[in-house]
Formats: sequence, C-alpha cells, structure tokens
Amino acid sequence: MIMKAVRYFGHKDVRVVNDLEKPVPKGDEVLLKIGGAGVCHSDLHIIDEGTIGNLVFTLGHENAGWIEAVGDTVKDYKKGDAVLVYGPWGCGHCKPCQQSKENYCDHQSELGYGGGLGLNGGMAEYMLVPSSRLLVPIFDLDPVIAAPLTDAALTPYSAIKRSLPKLMPDEYVVVIGVGGLGHVAIQILRETSGAAIIACDVTDEKLAFAKELGAAHTVNSKDPDAAEQILKITGLKKAKVILDFVGATPTIELGTKVVGMDGDLTIVGLGGGYYQYSMNGLPFGVTMTNPYWGSRTELMEVVGLARQKKIHIEIEKFDLEQANEVYDRMRHGQIKGRAVLVP
Amino acid sequence: MIMKAVRYFGHKDVRVVNDLEKPVPKGDEVLLKIGGAGVCHSDLHIIDEGTIGNLVFTLGHENAGWIEAVGDTVKDYKKGDAVLVYGPWGCGHCKPCQQSKENYCDHQSELGYGGGLGLNGGMAEYMLVPSSRLLVPIFDLDPVIAAPLTDAALTPYSAIKRSLPKLMPDEYVVVIGVGGLGHVAIQILRETSGAAIIACDVTDEKLAFAKELGAAHTVNSKDPDAAEQILKITGLKKAKVILDFVGATPTIELGTKVVGMDGDLTIVGLGGGYYQYSMNGLPFGVTMTNPYWGSRTELMEVVGLARQKKIHIEIEKFDLEQANEVYDRMRHGQIKGRAVLVP
Amino acid sequence: MIMKAVRYFGHKDVRVVNDLEKPVPKGDEVLLKIGGAGVCHSDLHIIDEGTIGNLVFTLGHENAGWIEAVGDTVKDYKKGDAVLVYGPWGCGHCKPCQQSKENYCDHQSELGYGGGLGLNGGMAEYMLVPSSRLLVPIFDLDPVIAAPLTDAALTPYSAIKRSLPKLMPDEYVVVIGVGGLGHVAIQILRETSGAAIIACDVTDEKLAFAKELGAAHTVNSKDPDAAEQILKITGLKKAKVILDFVGATPTIELGTKVVGMDGDLTIVGLGGGYYQYSMNGLPFGVTMTNPYWGSRTELMEVVGLARQKKIHIEIEKFDLEQANEVYDRMRHGQIKGRAVLVP
Amino acid sequence: MIMKAVRYFGHKDVRVVNDLEKPVPKGDEVLLKIGGAGVCHSDLHIIDEGTIGNLVFTLGHENAGWIEAVGDTVKDYKKGDAVLVYGPWGCGHCKPCQQSKENYCDHQSELGYGGGLGLNGGMAEYMLVPSSRLLVPIFDLDPVIAAPLTDAALTPYSAIKRSLPKLMPDEYVVVIGVGGLGHVAIQILRETSGAAIIACDVTDEKLAFAKELGAAHTVNSKDPDAAEQILKITGLKKAKVILDFVGATPTIELGTKVVGMDGDLTIVGLGGGYYQYSMNGLPFGVTMTNPYWGSRTELMEVVGLARQKKIHIEIEKFDLEQANEVYDRMRHGQIKGRAVLVP
Repeated sequence: MIMKAVRYFGHKDVRVVNDLEKPVPKGDEVLLKIGGAGVCHSDLHIIDEGTIGNLVFTLGHENAGWIEAVGDTVKDYKKGDAVLVYGPWGCGHCKPCQQSKENYCDHQSELGYGGGLGLNGGMAEYMLVPSSRLLVPIFDLDPVIAAPLTDAALTPYSAIKRSLPKLMPDEYVVVIGVGGLGHVAIQILRETSGAAIIACDVTDEKLAFAKELGAAHTVNSKDPDAAEQILKITGLKKAKVILDFVGATPTIELGTKVVGMDGDLTIVGLGGGYYQYSMNGLPFGVTMTNPYWGSRTELMEVVGLARQKKIHIEIEKFDLEQANEVYDRMRHGQIKGRAVLVP
Repeated sequence: MIMKAVRYFGHKDVRVVNDLEKPVPKGDEVLLKIGGAGVCHSDLHIIDEGTIGNLVFTLGHENAGWIEAVGDTVKDYKKGDAVLVYGPWGCGHCKPCQQSKENYCDHQSELGYGGGLGLNGGMAEYMLVPSSRLLVPIFDLDPVIAAPLTDAALTPYSAIKRSLPKLMPDEYVVVIGVGGLGHVAIQILRETSGAAIIACDVTDEKLAFAKELGAAHTVNSKDPDAAEQILKITGLKKAKVILDFVGATPTIELGTKVVGMDGDLTIVGLGGGYYQYSMNGLPFGVTMTNPYWGSRTELMEVVGLARQKKIHIEIEKFDLEQANEVYDRMRHGQIKGRAVLVP
Repeated sequence: MIMKAVRYFGHKDVRVVNDLEKPVPKGDEVLLKIGGAGVCHSDLHIIDEGTIGNLVFTLGHENAGWIEAVGDTVKDYKKGDAVLVYGPWGCGHCKPCQQSKENYCDHQSELGYGGGLGLNGGMAEYMLVPSSRLLVPIFDLDPVIAAPLTDAALTPYSAIKRSLPKLMPDEYVVVIGVGGLGHVAIQILRETSGAAIIACDVTDEKLAFAKELGAAHTVNSKDPDAAEQILKITGLKKAKVILDFVGATPTIELGTKVVGMDGDLTIVGLGGGYYQYSMNGLPFGVTMTNPYWGSRTELMEVVGLARQKKIHIEIEKFDLEQANEVYDRMRHGQIKGRAVLVP
Repeated sequence: MIMKAVRYFGHKDVRVVNDLEKPVPKGDEVLLKIGGAGVCHSDLHIIDEGTIGNLVFTLGHENAGWIEAVGDTVKDYKKGDAVLVYGPWGCGHCKPCQQSKENYCDHQSELGYGGGLGLNGGMAEYMLVPSSRLLVPIFDLDPVIAAPLTDAALTPYSAIKRSLPKLMPDEYVVVIGVGGLGHVAIQILRETSGAAIIACDVTDEKLAFAKELGAAHTVNSKDPDAAEQILKITGLKKAKVILDFVGATPTIELGTKVVGMDGDLTIVGLGGGYYQYSMNGLPFGVTMTNPYWGSRTELMEVVGLARQKKIHIEIEKFDLEQANEVYDRMRHGQIKGRAVLVP
C-alpha cells in the first residue's frame, strides 16, 4: 500500500510524493488516518535555513486524525477514535517524560524532536505514531479544526500556566505579538486568569483584533513611548507577567522595561533576540524564562478549552498538493489564521 | 460629636441609637465615613441564637466608605480615599497575620473576630478601624456597591483560590447553592478558571440564574438522582472540586458522592451538617476542607475583579433605620441579592 | 521453563508452588529476575480477610530485581539493569497516569490494583511487568535492600510531599505510629523539611527509636493527656501537619485535637477508624486527606534519597519457601523492620 | 539622653559619635536596645563607592536586641522581649508589603531601603524601629548571635525557598561561592531539601568546609574544566538549580553551562557580572532570577532553623568603637565568619 505525503528532502527542497509506503503499526505503535496537519512558521526555519540538517522526512508537526490501526499491545484505543498527536517526542522513560513533559526530555539533545521535525510527520494520508502515550483523545472535536491545538494553542497555554499563580485579578499581563500564538494566548488568559490583559502589536488591525478577543488595553509597540504607555496603565508596580511571542531584541527590551519586581518575563517567540543581562538591569526578583512547547497533560487541558468553545483558532484549509503554495504564502504573510492541510 | 448606629444589645435585641460617640482616631487608627454596610445572614446567628454572648457593639462586618480622619502615625492614606474594611481582625503580628491571613490568626480563639462581630462595626455613620493595615483601597469603585465584596465575594474567592491548581479546563467543578455566596462563586470561577461549572440548587429559578452567570450544566439537588446526573456529566473521573455553600448534611453527602480521586471537597456553608468520615468512605486522595473568609491580599484581588467588572453583586439599598426591617425580610427570604445599609 | 512462586489461591490459602510457567515478554513488557520481594502487612488483609475475592495470583507488591528479557518494542532498558517495579498499575492513558500518578488512575475501580494485588506479583523467581513505564532504575542500589522502597518508603514520601509547602522550619509536624511506614516518614521529614518532628507511639522503645531517627520530641499516645503534651510543645498555633500512620479512631481523634488552623490532617494508616466530621469540629481551614501510595516519579525521588543514604529501611531476608512462616511471624508482631523474600 | 553610634557622613567618611540623641518611640514605633549589629560586605559598597548618595545615618542593617520601650499603640510586645529587626523597610500597605515581602515593595524606588541603608540602623546603643510589624521574636536565642540571621541567612533562605519544588532528592543543586551567604546556603539546603549539593569555590579550604557542612561533591571553580566536572557528576540532565553567591561574569557563565532544562539559575551575589542572553543560549525552560533579601515571614522561618540548631553562623564580636577597624579587616579579607558589633 502506498500513500501521498509532503516530504522534506533537504535545504529548500520540499516535494509532494505519491509513493510512500503506508506504515503498519506494531507493539505500542498507532497508525493514524490524518484529518488535518497544521502548517507552522517554524517549518520555514527548517526549509529555508536547513536548520535540521541532512534528513529526509515527511513534514507536519501539528497533527490530528482518526485511529486507523493499532499495534498488538495497544490498549484502550480502537479504530475510528479521534485524537491529536502530541508533538515533542521524548525517550518516554526519564523523569520529565514520566511526568508527560517530553518537551523537556533529558535526552532531547540526542533524539530527533518528533514527527515533522526530523522524523515522519503528518502531512500525509497516514502517520505512524511511535507510542499510544503520544495520543490525546479529542472526542467530538473535528480533527481538521483541532490540529493546530497541538502547537499554536499548547505553546502559549504552557507558557501561561507557569505564571498562573502570579496572574491574579489585580495584576497586569502584557502580550507582545498578536499573531498565530499571541491571539490564542489572549483567549487562554481571558478564560483561565483574572489578570487585565495589555496587548502589543505593530498594526492597528491586530490591536483591534486583540480587543475583540479580550484585551483590556492595547499599545502599538512601534510607538517610541510604548513602554511609557504601558507603565501609565499599570502604575508603579508595573506588569506582573510579560509574554513575548516575538522574541526579537526590541521586544525583549520592551519587556524588560515594563516587568515589575518579582514578575515573570517569558520569551516564547523564536525571534533570535539578544539581551545584555545583569543583576541590576532588571527589577529584583524577575524570572526570565524561555519555555518550549508544552506537556502531554497540558494538551489534554487545551482540548478541554476547545471542547468548551472557550478558545477558537481561525483556520484555512488546503490540499496536501498545495503545501509549497502555502509555505510561499506564509513567506509573504498571506495566511490569515492557521493553514491546515487536509488529505 | 454623636452619631447614629445599629447596636446589638444582646440575644434578639437590636436597636438603632442616635447618641453614640463619634470616635477619634489615634496612632495607626483610621476613622471611616461609612458609604455602605452589607447585611449578612451570619448576623442572624448572632441576633437570633446569641452565639456571640454578652457583648454590646455596633453591627455590620461588610463595610466600605471614605477616610474621614487618620491617627498621627498613619502613612499613605488621606481624607476622602475610598476603602474597604477587611473583616477578620487578628493580632497583626503572628505568622498568618504577617502574611495577611488574619482569618487564620494564631490568636483567633482569644480575640473578638472583628468589627460587627463582637467589636464595633460599620452600621453607623462613622466607624473606627483599629489599624491602617486593615484597609483596602477601591479607587474608582462606589463604596455602597463595594461593601459586600468584603465577605460575599472574598469568602468564595478564597475558597476557590485554594483549588485553582486543580481547576483545569478539562475538569469539572460543582457549586452547591446559588445564593449570596454561590452566585458570586460562579462568576469568580468563570473569570479565573477554565473548569466547566456544574451548579446545583433546589429551585429552577436559581438554576436558570446560574446558567446566565456562566454555569455549563445545572442539576436540581432535590432530585433523588442528583448525584447520578452529575456523574453522567463528568464521566468516570467525577468532579475535581466541590464547593458546598450550604453545608447541610444532605449537601455534604452529595459532595462526597461526586468528588473524584485527588479532588477537593470544600465546605463553606455554615449549615451545621455532619459526615461520618472514614478512610474508605471517600475516593483516595480527597481533601476535605472548611475554609473561613479570606486574606487581606485576596481582598485586593477581589477588588481587581470588581474594578474590571468581571463580577457583579446585586444589591438593595436601605437606610440605617431600616436595619430591623431588613433582618426580618432576610428571616423570610425576602431579600434578592445583598442588602446594604446606607447612612 | 517453570519456576517457583508464592501463590494466593483464596481466603487463607497461600502455597509455594514449583511449576509456574516462566513468562515471556512481548511488546512493551519486561521480564524481571526478582532480587527481593517485600512482605507487607496489607498482604494479611488479602490472605486473612479475603478482601480481594476469588482470584488466583502470585503475591508480592514490593518488587525489585534485574531485567532478564524485554519485549520487542522496549527501548532504553537492557538485560542486567537493576530496577524497582512501581506498584499501583493504572490504565496508562488517563490524565493521572500520564502524570505518573497511577495511584489515582481514573479507571482504578475497574482494574486490578497491580502485581501482587490481584495480578501476578514478585514473590517468584521471575515476574512479568506489563510495561516498561512501570520500571524505575536503581543503578548501584542492591535490589534486595531496595524492594521495600516501592511501598514502605513511597507511601509516606508521597503523603509528606503533599504537605511540604506547610512544613516550614518554624512549624511542627506530628507523626503518629513509628512502625514500618512511620519510621521511614521520620527520616524523610528529617531530610526534606525543616519542621520540628513530634513522634507518637505506644511503646517507649519505639519512641526512643524515633528520637534516634530525628524526632525532636516524643509523646506516648497511650497517655490520657497526649494531646495536651503535644499542645504544650507547639503552643497556641498547634501542629501544622499531622501524619497518622495508624488510622484508628483514637489516633484520628488525637490528630483532630492537635492540628492547627489551615493545617493538614493526613490519614495514611488503614486502621479503619471513623470520625464525626462537622464544620466547627476542626479548626478553620484544616484539610483532611486520605492519600494512597505514590506516583512513578515520586518513586524516582525516593530512590534518590536511598542512593544518597539519607533513608534506611531495616530488613530481614527470607527464602521464598518461608513465605507462610513470615506471614505467621507478622501476625504475631515478630518481624523487626521489613521482611524481604529473596528467591 | 544621648548615645553612641557608628555614623555614615558621606563617601569614605564613617565616624563613631557619642552624642546622638536617644530616640523616643511613639505610635507603632519600638525602641530597641541593641544586642548585636552584623557587619556586612554590602556596607563597603556604601562607604567606599558612595552608592547611597548624600545621606547621613547610623550604619548597621543586621540588627537584634531587646525591646526597651514601645509607642502607645504597640500591642503584644513588652520591654525585654528579644527580637530581630527585619531589614528592607517598605511602605507597609502595598500588596507585597501586606504579604510580608517588603523586599519587593511597590514603592522601593521611592523609599530609603531601611535602617542602616539610608535610614538610621543598629550600630548604636539604641535603635528606633518605625513599626512593630518589622520585628521578629527570637525567644531564647541570643541577639548577639542572631543578628546576622537577618541578612546572611535570610537572603540565601529566600533564594532557596523559591526553588524548593525543584530541589527533589533525585536532583542536583550547585552552590557557587562558599562565603558569608554560601556557607549558610549549604546548611539550609541540607536541612530543607533532599537534593544532592555540589559546592564550588576557588580555595581547597572553602571546599573542605563545604563538605563538612553537607555538600556531597565539591568542584574548584578555578579549574578550566569545572563545568565538565560538574556535568560528570550530574549526567545528562545537568543540575536542576544553580545558586550563584558571587554573581561575577565567570560564575554566571559557569551556571549557564551546568543548569538543566526547566531548571533555576539564581544569581544572588552582587558581583556585577554580565551575560549575553538569547533564547537558544540556555537550555529550554530555564528561569534566570535575581532575588533580593527575603520576607518577614521567611525571617520567622529562619529563626525556626536557628532555634532548632539546624543552622549555625560563625561570628566574631567587636566593640562599636572598632567599626572602622572591622571594615578595614573586611577590605583585606581578614574576617572569618561574620563580624558583629556589640554595644
């Protein structure tokens, strides 16, 4: 049996093939019929910069579908179950993996990062998931719509969850960047914390969108006095939590100027920014953090938000064959919301 | 200078007087011009059952107003500032008090419980607050509306905050009793947690109100199969958190039947219920708790919710002179929302 | 291939057999050569009271050994690795299991409780472990000595870990019962918390042992004024945490008398005690809890304590053939420390 | 009434005077008869670098003594009570202050930092403490010995407490710098956490001292392969927590090389170091923090450790008149342990 797939063959070389072998699951493996595979900006790092090296694999690390077949030792799952595929695949045995935090697996430096990130992913008709522990049931959710939850929702969710004890209703949280992750972050903050949200972006359209989603205040981060505008809102105590979904040098700088003592400065965006750290450069007690993705059980919680219709990710559907076209549109900022390939 | 006040003179003896001495603050004391004094069901325990013994004092433990005068060592506060009065007055020096948790003061058994609860409270034109540490600024909020925040909002807020780490978006929380505290609890849960809310009460009107406020499901707790109805919603894992704002024997029983393993069974209502506790009577890992009121900094957070208009308490205004009439209407369930005396 | 095993055949019927089939692991299963199988008091509930019903299985739920063979999809483990077997086997897929807390598996009511508790355990030459996720490496520790860590150390460790945020150096913790679990609890408290330990038991010998292990104070719980003695030590604030390793009605009563406001009253012992719970029967804010066993990653932490020689469990070794003799000595209180069967 | 005091008159100008007015407490103020005033390295920043500007005040921010007199509204305290003076004096009303964390007072940038740091401190016969909330009772401890607890013990205690949930018995913690704070940190870690301690310093004598105090491993941080030595001990997962009591560029660099994913990199030492921060420069999920001093209730917990004799600070006693001599010996590294001035 053969199938269609979007394959990475090396630096700037992505092709849709028709003759990939359809895998057969054994042991604890699970074969998934793909319902939707999200297309993520981080794919462009792999394709355009060749960051992942000389590997050949099927792209797609935001995957959802229905179980097609299971290996002989898989329990509890059966054909037709709708599931998400958890993205960062760890060793499964170290302490972080035992706690479901494979995003911080002790062996991360030694292993591929998961399906679509060096190993075969979900931009295909079928995908082989190496263990049933990597599945999260979505029950009545549509896999096409649910696919982006695995990254575009899980990543901000996990960053926010770290700071929940500080996100009290008398505090301010600043969200920098109202894009693919940031617009989900605002919804998650609205639903899971009482803190007042200040959203920052560079276009008025994005700031208006942020208000619709639940931001109490918006500030255009292009304004030279953006930091002063934020501090005028917060008063002396400044913002308790900063979530930077851009991660460029200017956004990190902005964060350092508006975070208050004992606050959290969390940099999620892979913008490659730098910051000259010194003891006295930040208010005392600030924690500066670079979290990565989220845990398996956090993905269960994200599914809970989606099933309750508390968060919504706008998607555009495309065929597998359109993969290169979609990547091209992403390079030119022409995708609104999240693109999902539907086999 | 004399003033008007609603005074407790003993068992079933409440009178409005006109000749109480207006206090003069010294040291760290603060004199408040009362804007509103909430009338609470627990006052009826004091009046009708004589639980507080042989003391004579001004009633009213839900107090808000404007600063009228300050003692000579008070800093940062000035005449005209709008503030709430934190209710449970502790020693101020023990560890819980130092952490702002005077509701758990080490000396609680030795001290009066605070203004309106054995010491002079706020059903008067002016109230003497013994220390500026007991004030919480409300900025642009109206003291008349804000008064009930000090108890009717703070008590459920503090009970909920204990359980926030368990109130994840894939979990269920059951609120038993949609009355004065319960209807605020539903709003607080809606705003600060992603858990799905199941509300229980005995009238369809209250259940409909719960839905408006944010409950996802409602169950009439008079139904003989109420527990089964709840478990049908939650599935095998049952509810993660139960908040019982009644505290009668049948509601505690209901809670024990629907709480899941490692869950929280929190009894807030002073309904005087009993439960025969045994290791195997509850699912493993359940924590059964009887919290009391909240802390000073939690009251700051409650003010944050109110200033953001995330919670709303319906109030009815009355004159000080109507105190006995209001208590009477409360005895007959004829107050909708919260009664507030306005001098 | 056949092997020796200690089998439960029903109420009061335990026999050592010589002809059990040696299992062959497949998929994610692992075959263990048993180094030691701890003998636990809870086995007597199964044997003498028939609590587990009409099942036939190999006893032993505290198991350690060396990997003999692995199924074809097991990764990272190889023949000869020394490991513990985590005891409470859950479904592996629900949220608690994904977090390694199989002791609170959503499906606990539907499943057997694990090897030696309805399914085949470790009182045998070899044991089949159903999944590699249930193994915890012990590196240089001796499996004979390490076997009791899986229950006699993990259970108190998990109960203590729940309360660590309250076990500050200015607080008191009361340990009731210095037996198999309690004597390990004192060591764990000494090593992982700064709280002052008050140990209670009924014999002077046990109290002297408690002092050696790190208790700062001891009180004979037979004394009619035991509660007063404890309160004289703690002062007004009482004890912050109570760990009751007996769980009989009188010990629960003792706990309720000495626990302070906002404290933890944790009942671990399966003594079958009862307590008449009411809102005002306990100081405000007390959490009453009945934890069960511990999680997979907590067992990793227990191994960390043992490898650092921070805890020590005294053991007596016996042959598999002596199983019934050992149970008999346990019935008569003639085992000092923990009995371990060594094949 | 006049008294003796060690006064700062400006850059490099410290004099012992005999004619300072003995203060009289009013309101909530307390007059302390000083038992001991610790001499801290940070005084040298003030004296030698003039960092605090043009103020004239009595030095000494590590103060202990007996209550001599109280203002008219002070409750619970009486003449003769032995107490510590909490060091960082905040506004007392903001949220951090209400939680006892005056070290993170919202108004820190507007206020002097406390007695001995811009305001009159404890190197005098008597000291006026502006509020009874700043006192911590020490009961049977000797004020001479207890004085350094207020900073040399509180600062590492607070830094460690932030990381306690990560300091599990299967993890490693690295202490960089076994000096005045670091040698107390090792003792606190030994008593309050099960993590294995790796101590780093540049002299063999200090490393031997670290072993005596409870370090499991020591590494000379002058060794060019110090990071490799540490990673050989920890294995792949690296160290979970780094506590840097030096804070110079090389020690921060060392920390970044040995901290593991999701770990804590905590810089306490005021060594003025720099670090070029970037998303990918640190393992994912690392929190980099610059904590400052500790809270009032953490000081209560530190007193708990000292009263249980779980920590010990070596001190040398001097007369008030010897202040300049002591500072000089500190400049030349000739003080072993902590110098305390005894009036």
